[in-house]
Amino acid sequence: MSLESRFDELLRRLGVIDDLVKAGTLLGWDEETKMPVAGAAARAEQRATVEAVTHEHRVDPALGALLEELRPFEESRDAESFEASVIRVARRDYEKAVRVPPALRAELERAGSLGYRAWLRARAENDFSIMLPHLERNLELRREYVECFAPTGDRYDVVLDDYEPGMTTFEVESIFTRIKERLVPMIRAVSEMEPIDDSCLRGSFPRPAQHRVSLAILEAWGLDDASWRLDYTVHPFEVAMAVDDIRLTTRFDEDNIHGLLSCLHEFGHGLYERQIDPAFARTPLGDGVSSAIHESQSRMWENLVGRRTSTWRCFYPTLQRELPEFGDVPLETFVRALNKVKPTLRRVDADEVTYSLHVILRFEIERDLLDGRLAVPDLPDAFDAKMRDYLGLQPPDVASGVLQDVHWSDMSLGYFPTYALGNVVSVQLWERAEADLGDLDEQFERGEFAPLAEWLRENVHRHGRKYEPRELLERTVGSGMNPEPYLGYLQRELEELFGAAVA
Amino acid sequence: MSLESRFDELLRRLGVIDDLVKAGTLLGWDEETKMPVAGAAARAEQRATVEAVTHEHRVDPALGALLEELRPFEESRDAESFEASVIRVARRDYEKAVRVPPALRAELERAGSLGYRAWLRARAENDFSIMLPHLERNLELRREYVECFAPTGDRYDVVLDDYEPGMTTFEVESIFTRIKERLVPMIRAVSEMEPIDDSCLRGSFPRPAQHRVSLAILEAWGLDDASWRLDYTVHPFEVAMAVDDIRLTTRFDEDNIHGLLSCLHEFGHGLYERQIDPAFARTPLGDGVSSAIHESQSRMWENLVGRRTSTWRCFYPTLQRELPEFGDVPLETFVRALNKVKPTLRRVDADEVTYSLHVILRFEIERDLLDGRLAVPDLPDAFDAKMRDYLGLQPPDVASGVLQDVHWSDMSLGYFPTYALGNVVSVQLWERAEADLGDLDEQFERGEFAPLAEWLRENVHRHGRKYEPRELLERTVGSGMNPEPYLGYLQRELEELFGAAVA
Repeated sequence: MSLESRFDELLRRLGVIDDLVKAGTLLGWDEETKMPVAGAAARAEQRATVEAVTHEHRVDPALGALLEELRPFEESRDAESFEASVIRVARRDYEKAVRVPPALRAELERAGSLGYRAWLRARAENDFSIMLPHLERNLELRREYVECFAPTGDRYDVVLDDYEPGMTTFEVESIFTRIKERLVPMIRAVSEMEPIDDSCLRGSFPRPAQHRVSLAILEAWGLDDASWRLDYTVHPFEVAMAVDDIRLTTRFDEDNIHGLLSCLHEFGHGLYERQIDPAFARTPLGDGVSSAIHESQSRMWENLVGRRTSTWRCFYPTLQRELPEFGDVPLETFVRALNKVKPTLRRVDADEVTYSLHVILRFEIERDLLDGRLAVPDLPDAFDAKMRDYLGLQPPDVASGVLQDVHWSDMSLGYFPTYALGNVVSVQLWERAEADLGDLDEQFERGEFAPLAEWLRENVHRHGRKYEPRELLERTVGSGMNPEPYLGYLQRELEELFGAAVA
Repeated sequence: MSLESRFDELLRRLGVIDDLVKAGTLLGWDEETKMPVAGAAARAEQRATVEAVTHEHRVDPALGALLEELRPFEESRDAESFEASVIRVARRDYEKAVRVPPALRAELERAGSLGYRAWLRARAENDFSIMLPHLERNLELRREYVECFAPTGDRYDVVLDDYEPGMTTFEVESIFTRIKERLVPMIRAVSEMEPIDDSCLRGSFPRPAQHRVSLAILEAWGLDDASWRLDYTVHPFEVAMAVDDIRLTTRFDEDNIHGLLSCLHEFGHGLYERQIDPAFARTPLGDGVSSAIHESQSRMWENLVGRRTSTWRCFYPTLQRELPEFGDVPLETFVRALNKVKPTLRRVDADEVTYSLHVILRFEIERDLLDGRLAVPDLPDAFDAKMRDYLGLQPPDVASGVLQDVHWSDMSLGYFPTYALGNVVSVQLWERAEADLGDLDEQFERGEFAPLAEWLRENVHRHGRKYEPRELLERTVGSGMNPEPYLGYLQRELEELFGAAVA
């Protein structure tokens, strides 16, 4: 059998895995958007089965043997070639997957699911003690998971790698230390200023009108009916069933326009997956490369584009036509309201400036938990202490404090930091794009968003998982992750909002 | 290992198969109702993979060994017990599945898919020659398929068994001979009568109003939001993701109310699956027992209930309120129009009386093709000749003649007869239900449909696949399939429409 035909066999096996993943994706999407509520119990079984069958294919020893057999083939090709890249990334996935014994994986699944249900109850009843045994159990299992990778350095590196391949805890910590050093005083200064009036963002906004405005913006940005959908859900998200089947979800509330901004956020995720090289379909290359890079895309379209004066010079007339309450609100007032800075208790309500501090405090707590420096019973106090230190706020109860996020219900450590790293990367990419494309504001005012989308396709999206995040950034912006552009951007933003006194 | 725990292992394996089937079902439902059009190519791969992986689980030799091991356990239980029924039905499925070599199954799949695409083109271009090689190839493969079962009797028995387990071609033929003998003269007589005026069914009917009327009827019949959905599609269908996740689809056209009747039809399928014993979930018992029994349910709600004066005495005011064009149309005129009898070229446009003849002529042609009495090149002439004989119509071209249906594009023989058998069974069940429940018209006029639905649950639905179709009918109506009640019903219907002269 020639190596070429063995490579075809590899593609066949990887295609099966990808198809099964997508079948699971659709079960999840449908559950959140379309499924009649009574179907939930059956759906849980269906999802668990598809997940388990997918995993069997991922760890099939025949796949491992095939990848070994293909080493000479891989070495005979250029490292950047499709063939070498597929084999390299598939091997990395395989080697990670087989590290974890099936029994532990099943137990993580089971305890995570129990933890999720306990979290719903604990939050509703505002009672941390309900969560306590589940957090203890899930943390114990997460530690066992980490041990499967026999870490020699920081144990947090293992969980971080699941979301941000190749990045170390040390790097994250360095970036976060720098961000904290600049943001904490900035936010303290902001708290002493006259608060920004964002009352225009509250009112009575019919959902169909919000839907029309959102679609008008997204269509100007590149969404079309042939390859995209927009549906409603409780918690907005994005999934791709294929490069040409991109699904955004949002939630429109009648009393605010948050759902519109969430559309812009999910669009960023969607555009990333829409613009991956179609030749990567049904291979491990055909996906976003990391959580931070993914988040950089959603943050870019939500914040850097979506809260920008020039963007709204283009779309504000549409908004005013569809939502007449904005008829008397000057554009400047509206955009200033969109960019309001004010510490909040809840991470998901946070503005662009304070958001990263919510994330950083969670990262620090996660590390302490994993390393045993913080015991689970002490978690609420540790959380509150950092909220006071970094954001100057004391959560009134655990429901709006330590229990506000779902992520710890199954001790999914390593994900939180990527939210803030996404902010960091978004500004690095933005500055490079502006350097390449010229004044983006002029383009946006004229309704020209295609050059930015095209730049992102060329420099980020099309590569899928071909390059590791670090390599991708090096190629695109000439360096690794660097918080300075992001901090500079925030500083300019605060100066604009409050004058030089703050920043 | 105790046999009880081996039985649990069987349930686990069967649960996995069912979950995978449902994942495939959702991929199909989504493709027809929600998927952005550009996602079609990826979806075809996803569906093929899930189908292939499901099949691997179905023919897993370990499943066969387990079923053998469980023979003593099965024999130790009552044949009607859950355990014995699961093992019996699972073994039947397994033994059928392993008869067909994977290579033949793949080739049937491939040739069928090519045939489908050729059919779309052949119909559009009205050119039988495009289909000819595909029909030849698919027929050849279908014959190979039949040979896998080493038939000793009629070869058509094999394909029939895929849709109507346990039924023989001889039985179908006897029923159809009797139906034809009565229907052909009836229809000839009808063609000589003054045509029924159904012009009130054509007009300008806004889709949202049709949707509201349909939902009002279906909700009165038992549909609720917690366990059902109604979506739009090109070709209406019904699927169940679970006993409490039932999905109907329809198509509302602005110029007629056919979409409303198609809702009633699909509801019949949905109610069947909604009322299967929930304890049968994730086992082979948790499904409709055969195509004819399934079709008897859709036909019952569409025709016997849905075209009935008493039903419309209940719902006509709603229809008139939502679709004011019916304001001046007397109830009697409307119901008479719904029950119009007139031979049509297209099977899907056929009325209750002529429908079975469309089916019978296809059954006869299918048998002749399979047995080699009819060569594929002669198919169009054979089709036209029977259309003239049975329905008095000459198709003007192949697109509206022999190419009108999708079923032969992959030579899926054996399915057509179940449409007419469904009509037969629907009236047998109806008469038994009326005998048990008293005057259904009085109940319907009062809006009471629950007694009929409950009767169907008790006597048909809840049993799922526990009894073979013949056994189920014997238990419920005390005999096998019998066309006389159906013929009597049609005769009474024609007398009502045209007076005694016709029937």
